[in-house]
Amino acid sequence: MQSQPVSIFERAFKKLVPGGLEAVGRRGSDIMNIAADLPEADITAVKEWIDNCLAQNGGQVEARNRAAMLGRAYLKLSVTGKTRFLGLLAEHYGVNESSVEKAIDQWHNAKSSQKTEAAQALRRALEPSRTALLKQFNGVPSGVKFLVDMRDELLTFCKDYPALKSLETDLQDLLATWFDIGLLQLEEINWHSSAAMLEKLIAYEAVHAIKSWNDLKNRLDSDRRCFAFIHPNMPDEPLIFVEVALVNGLAGNVQKLLDEDAPTQDIDTADTAIFYSISNAQRGLAGISFGNFLIKQVVKKLRDEFPQLKQFATLSPIPGFRRWLENTTAEQLAHLPGGEQWLSYPPPRDPVLANQTDTTGGQQEAILKLAASYLCSTKPDSGRANDPVAHFHLSNGAQVARLNWMADTSDKGLKQSAGLMVNYLYELPKIVHRSQQYTSIGAVSQSSAIKKLLK
Amino acid sequence: MQSQPVSIFERAFKKLVPGGLEAVGRRGSDIMNIAADLPEADITAVKEWIDNCLAQNGGQVEARNRAAMLGRAYLKLSVTGKTRFLGLLAEHYGVNESSVEKAIDQWHNAKSSQKTEAAQALRRALEPSRTALLKQFNGVPSGVKFLVDMRDELLTFCKDYPALKSLETDLQDLLATWFDIGLLQLEEINWHSSAAMLEKLIAYEAVHAIKSWNDLKNRLDSDRRCFAFIHPNMPDEPLIFVEVALVNGLAGNVQKLLDEDAPTQDIDTADTAIFYSISNAQRGLAGISFGNFLIKQVVKKLRDEFPQLKQFATLSPIPGFRRWLENTTAEQLAHLPGGEQWLSYPPPRDPVLANQTDTTGGQQEAILKLAASYLCSTKPDSGRANDPVAHFHLSNGAQVARLNWMADTSDKGLKQSAGLMVNYLYELPKIVHRSQQYTSIGAVSQSSAIKKLLK
Amino acid sequence: MQSQPVSIFERAFKKLVPGGLEAVGRRGSDIMNIAADLPEADITAVKEWIDNCLAQNGGQVEARNRAAMLGRAYLKLSVTGKTRFLGLLAEHYGVNESSVEKAIDQWHNAKSSQKTEAAQALRRALEPSRTALLKQFNGVPSGVKFLVDMRDELLTFCKDYPALKSLETDLQDLLATWFDIGLLQLEEINWHSSAAMLEKLIAYEAVHAIKSWNDLKNRLDSDRRCFAFIHPNMPDEPLIFVEVALVNGLAGNVQKLLDEDAPTQDIDTADTAIFYSISNAQRGLAGISFGNFLIKQVVKKLRDEFPQLKQFATLSPIPGFRRWLENTTAEQLAHLPGGEQWLSYPPPRDPVLANQTDTTGGQQEAILKLAASYLCSTKPDSGRANDPVAHFHLSNGAQVARLNWMADTSDKGLKQSAGLMVNYLYELPKIVHRSQQYTSIGAVSQSSAIKKLLK
Amino acid sequence: MQSQPVSIFERAFKKLVPGGLEAVGRRGSDIMNIAADLPEADITAVKEWIDNCLAQNGGQVEARNRAAMLGRAYLKLSVTGKTRFLGLLAEHYGVNESSVEKAIDQWHNAKSSQKTEAAQALRRALEPSRTALLKQFNGVPSGVKFLVDMRDELLTFCKDYPALKSLETDLQDLLATWFDIGLLQLEEINWHSSAAMLEKLIAYEAVHAIKSWNDLKNRLDSDRRCFAFIHPNMPDEPLIFVEVALVNGLAGNVQKLLDEDAPTQDIDTADTAIFYSISNAQRGLAGISFGNFLIKQVVKKLRDEFPQLKQFATLSPIPGFRRWLENTTAEQLAHLPGGEQWLSYPPPRDPVLANQTDTTGGQQEAILKLAASYLCSTKPDSGRANDPVAHFHLSNGAQVARLNWMADTSDKGLKQSAGLMVNYLYELPKIVHRSQQYTSIGAVSQSSAIKKLLK
Repeated sequence: MQSQPVSIFERAFKKLVPGGLEAVGRRGSDIMNIAADLPEADITAVKEWIDNCLAQNGGQVEARNRAAMLGRAYLKLSVTGKTRFLGLLAEHYGVNESSVEKAIDQWHNAKSSQKTEAAQALRRALEPSRTALLKQFNGVPSGVKFLVDMRDELLTFCKDYPALKSLETDLQDLLATWFDIGLLQLEEINWHSSAAMLEKLIAYEAVHAIKSWNDLKNRLDSDRRCFAFIHPNMPDEPLIFVEVALVNGLAGNVQKLLDEDAPTQDIDTADTAIFYSISNAQRGLAGISFGNFLIKQVVKKLRDEFPQLKQFATLSPIPGFRRWLENTTAEQLAHLPGGEQWLSYPPPRDPVLANQTDTTGGQQEAILKLAASYLCSTKPDSGRANDPVAHFHLSNGAQVARLNWMADTSDKGLKQSAGLMVNYLYELPKIVHRSQQYTSIGAVSQSSAIKKLLK
Repeated sequence: MQSQPVSIFERAFKKLVPGGLEAVGRRGSDIMNIAADLPEADITAVKEWIDNCLAQNGGQVEARNRAAMLGRAYLKLSVTGKTRFLGLLAEHYGVNESSVEKAIDQWHNAKSSQKTEAAQALRRALEPSRTALLKQFNGVPSGVKFLVDMRDELLTFCKDYPALKSLETDLQDLLATWFDIGLLQLEEINWHSSAAMLEKLIAYEAVHAIKSWNDLKNRLDSDRRCFAFIHPNMPDEPLIFVEVALVNGLAGNVQKLLDEDAPTQDIDTADTAIFYSISNAQRGLAGISFGNFLIKQVVKKLRDEFPQLKQFATLSPIPGFRRWLENTTAEQLAHLPGGEQWLSYPPPRDPVLANQTDTTGGQQEAILKLAASYLCSTKPDSGRANDPVAHFHLSNGAQVARLNWMADTSDKGLKQSAGLMVNYLYELPKIVHRSQQYTSIGAVSQSSAIKKLLK
Repeated sequence: MQSQPVSIFERAFKKLVPGGLEAVGRRGSDIMNIAADLPEADITAVKEWIDNCLAQNGGQVEARNRAAMLGRAYLKLSVTGKTRFLGLLAEHYGVNESSVEKAIDQWHNAKSSQKTEAAQALRRALEPSRTALLKQFNGVPSGVKFLVDMRDELLTFCKDYPALKSLETDLQDLLATWFDIGLLQLEEINWHSSAAMLEKLIAYEAVHAIKSWNDLKNRLDSDRRCFAFIHPNMPDEPLIFVEVALVNGLAGNVQKLLDEDAPTQDIDTADTAIFYSISNAQRGLAGISFGNFLIKQVVKKLRDEFPQLKQFATLSPIPGFRRWLENTTAEQLAHLPGGEQWLSYPPPRDPVLANQTDTTGGQQEAILKLAASYLCSTKPDSGRANDPVAHFHLSNGAQVARLNWMADTSDKGLKQSAGLMVNYLYELPKIVHRSQQYTSIGAVSQSSAIKKLLK
Repeated sequence: MQSQPVSIFERAFKKLVPGGLEAVGRRGSDIMNIAADLPEADITAVKEWIDNCLAQNGGQVEARNRAAMLGRAYLKLSVTGKTRFLGLLAEHYGVNESSVEKAIDQWHNAKSSQKTEAAQALRRALEPSRTALLKQFNGVPSGVKFLVDMRDELLTFCKDYPALKSLETDLQDLLATWFDIGLLQLEEINWHSSAAMLEKLIAYEAVHAIKSWNDLKNRLDSDRRCFAFIHPNMPDEPLIFVEVALVNGLAGNVQKLLDEDAPTQDIDTADTAIFYSISNAQRGLAGISFGNFLIKQVVKKLRDEFPQLKQFATLSPIPGFRRWLENTTAEQLAHLPGGEQWLSYPPPRDPVLANQTDTTGGQQEAILKLAASYLCSTKPDSGRANDPVAHFHLSNGAQVARLNWMADTSDKGLKQSAGLMVNYLYELPKIVHRSQQYTSIGAVSQSSAIKKLLK
């Protein structure tokens, strides 16, 4: 995670009312003087401070001021201090078990007409007390980003401290409410966007790394579009963003697409929108999904701006392909289209080297057939596609449309996807149906080209 | 409530992706053809539609489209139809009792280390299934306002149909999350604000009615300020707003303050900000409180813009005074400051007529003393001030500062407050302490002038 | 004109740098103390102040401060004082004749290669010294509006004081440069526009008066559009605005169009945009033309928003028709289509009464024929159309398309246009050609319906 | 200059009305087919096109479309073609000499009361016909920037083709009107500004080159401010910008100020604003001055945001110092403070090396004294300061406040300013007086420290 400077709350305090940092600070000397590792001796001060926040003594505004002060103290802690702090929240500010028992009794004893009320009461009893504290950060400038980053840290800490898991889950529930899709804004990102926003694209792009401001500028040229979801309380932070190229026909090579020296496409004659990169930007929001909405709203936007567009498709990696190929036994392969052909070549059978050694095109053919098999197969238990990217687009209603040879020759592209890329096609009138078919019975829609490979 | 035109969703559909109303409409003929009174025969169609929304079959985007279609159908219903629809939600889409029982068992059987997880599972089992449906409206343009207005209607319907109460409470819980103070924006409203916003002020002003656009313009003149909280999903709708006058010294008469012919105050020499009207604008958000935050953030804003301001105070009605005076027995009055004096006048003792009949000032003196008593007294059971407006400001940390004779001579002012108005004073350094004193022990801070009246 | 309050400059000063009103004020006591009628005794102080402004002693910023102070003094003058002030500018701050003579000599003596330079020098010598003073107001907040209003006043004063004409012309030249079309912004005005802007529409609408805020709201409903040109230095002031209705087919009655109770048109099925009102808002900009640009840019905007629109037309008054009909001799009428028919009715021949007395439709027929004649005829000397509104649209490239009987039954409509209205049609591919034909040879494009009337 | 791509007009056409590039293009085939060097054979087509623009045949909108087409043709020309094109404008579209002669006659014959009108007529006759053409570009999107860049080129071409000078001067006059200070907006530039704007800062910074986006980000940190003047028709183009550091006390070293690793100043305790870089960004606006306004408006802005600021000063280079020192004879030096001391050191007397060889501080002392002399001395003929930067700040009312040794050790700093930098101090109450003293009698305000050096 990008750790936040303590100063984010300093600035926050200046916006708070009334009195600001100074006023709370005088009352907050205890909490500001705790040691970075949060030794036992300082735990009491922290507890007292938290209790004061929860008591809302002095009004809600004061409580938020205190929460901000607490956040500031947290940011000054070391990793050890932070885990101790979070452990305190996880263990001491959970649900009150006896209250829960009492509410369960009331539920059991409730008459039919009071059942609903009893359910509500029980639900409230099950709300951990820390939730009220976490919610107070919403009212603090930068407080939402603070919690998103805290969850990012928690996801890391949880590996070593499973006791923090419940806190992490609570935080996810809370963030899921605040980051409901209805509260997000779809924003077009271009060269007129703020540098504060654009530097985040450079930092967060997860599919095809942005190498420089020039690379970024090229991706925001007149024949490109970029869209992000933004939350009103984190105005400079993309939550997820998609990069789109306007081209003629399906694009089949990402290096060509990103070539800074390539001529600019005349957007008035482009007939295809290629979604070539989708990146989640906030690890702290892991598990809260935006991609489905993003793609569909962007399709809507593009259709409004460019009525002449005829195709909406992705140019996507197949990140699990090479590992799958290596982990699949010869026996299993032999039953798949292209399998025997592939096995007929002498080891080491390397799809990446194939490009150089494949004089007849036979290796290429075999690999494309196997890749088609991989993409269109689902796991027996879950019914989900083997490939995670495939699963995402198929559940959104896309079709596996075309495989592209030597389409991503970057190190990562070769290593994960054997240089292959796939176009997923979004055909608007068929999206709902395809999504239903995939979700309910694991049916993967295939273009005729893919079907041919699978014969 | 202002009932919404069906067309709000028509427009919403055009913004939805992809396909819009038309596409969903073809699939939604059943739901669009239900009769206005929602007869039994149509209930099945509604149920099926709701179940489809909840199943999210076809993807989340499709589900939101379906929710919008459902909302559109709802808006076409008669009052009878609406209550039947809401009744359906209240009764058939609650919690699944057997799931709850199962989760309670698991909670009881959980080991200490699994207790938290079991609590989370139980909490989820207690979530009524309708909540997922209600949440989908957040993703629909105008959907949040739709729910706010639906709760407004529910508050009315509940009186006759108590079974709807649980739905109303669920909705309040949901709206409370979305309308968390941290998600609201404080917006300055002035003559440069949109007419769409300004017409809402005219409609919603609850304290001193705005008579015309000219009256409104006068209240937004250079020596006035107006601020509102806005939710990003309801951009033209104030949630609560406050009107402020910049004056010299405490203002003591609201008709003078609102006189359109009065000269404009030079704001550079004003030393006092008078909060003369605070109105909640959305009945559908009843029980979700913003006033405390509003006042304090506005104080902060005003201090930034006008560093020379020395006092922040209200000019407030005393809406419960006259009724209290009439309902208090002579015996009780006799024990209060001013009581005997007041009783010494022959009946009918009418504080409003006093203005004309009071030749010596004695009646006025008695009434002011009694009003001071009323304002500073708290209910024995709750410790809350008798007067609701007093309770609001005292819990925010204000002081009862000054009583004003014949300060609001409007019909409403005479009828409720006997023409009196009171200034509550917000002294910044003392706000937290006063709020604590009032909340914890019911102590009411009084100026020396008020103390004198109470002697 | 709407006379400006002195306070516009007070506020302006607060934005000025550095020191503001106060600082300049100390140095400006002379100019602030002049009497309202500007007696001879005070003329010297004014002159000295102007000379200081022109000398730019103390820097350009100081000079603009001084100009603002001068403007403030001007606004406090009576009409007498203002005419004396403007007279001073007109007579004492013109061109220096001896400098001009010297520059003329140099021009005459200039070698061929120096001719251009000599021309530039002569042009500068011909620049009146007051121009430099007027230009300084551009740098003063509200200064541009100040000059626009000053010219408005000058246009009135000129009638009695012809000596002010040269100053008025200078000001027009200056304003024409600042209000070049390239510096203006086309802004959509709707119910989300500021009240400050909207109240100007009510004040300035010159064709069909806006009766109330409700009437205005109706004109900004979802099936209407309104656009205005705005100058960046006068952000709340429309310079010219056009009101458009989206309808099906040509609209033929303005009262129906403005009926607040009429149902709202579904804009997705509208095929025609009707420009039913174009108003110049600033008399001080008389002679500087924006209408041509406005109509064409609005057509462009509407085509982008509503690709399905098939017709762009006006619904216009024929303001000179009735006077023309009354002033045309029977002999002249007899030579026109419909003329003999009209003369065949017994006097008083009144086109307005015709509506009631015309049992056969004969009067209506005759009047429509005469109106067509009137609209399509041009003055022999200038080649311009008889009707001023016709001239405006014809020179923009429109066609006279349809006459509408009893189309504007307001007092003004009956009195000026005999209740008739005309649709001018803007057919995009033919605009340039028609404009050229009209401008060069006075050819008026007529629809077949109009041609039929003229047979 | 940064030459513009032809495409700026392509985009412009899409915004033009109605019909756009395509429509005009069909009529513009001649102009689009001219050869890059504009041979004699193509001159006729260009002339005809220009004449059509000037005739405004087909309406003003059409004329602007034609102008845009002409601009597009110009941008495709080679340098040879451009000079021929501009030569055509300079020679064939000037003033009509016989019209001028006629207007001169009328001026001479005019009665006293008609003199003003005759002057206006003569002034109009002196307007070159090309001006009307140039003005049409104002209405074309990107047209203003097109002319600014055209003047940039003209300034270069003029050196070889003096005949173009008149055109260049006309263009300056025209641009001076459009870029009047009153039409400019002061905009704060920070990390939230658009990348499109920020990349211009990197390109245009003329004093201390910006090395990278990181360097830029550091200059826009929380303890820095940057302001620019913007013209509404060139929204992404700074015209001039100033970079400010908020510090404690006068800053004396620019490398320290720009050190990316230096800690961020707490702006709440900063007492001094240092203007350390002012850059003109548009060579095409040379001779049109904004700096004076910029500094004073920025001072105003900073005072509003940071009331605690006590000093406003620059940290400026002394770009003419080293050349002056080298070009001043020993005899002249000997009469100046520090001169004899400096001459007492053996040659080569090098102020840059002095830093290493100066063991006693004597060389430093001598150089500082000589620098003070240089800064405070004025040219006998013009009364202007020797140093151009000094002249700029002194005419704005600043004081020479402090000299800083080894304050700019960049190559440029050492080469031009001998590593010295100077603080000019802007004391608000004294600005007007100092500006007047300097402008009228060449008096240079000096701090006591500078006076001491000059003793």
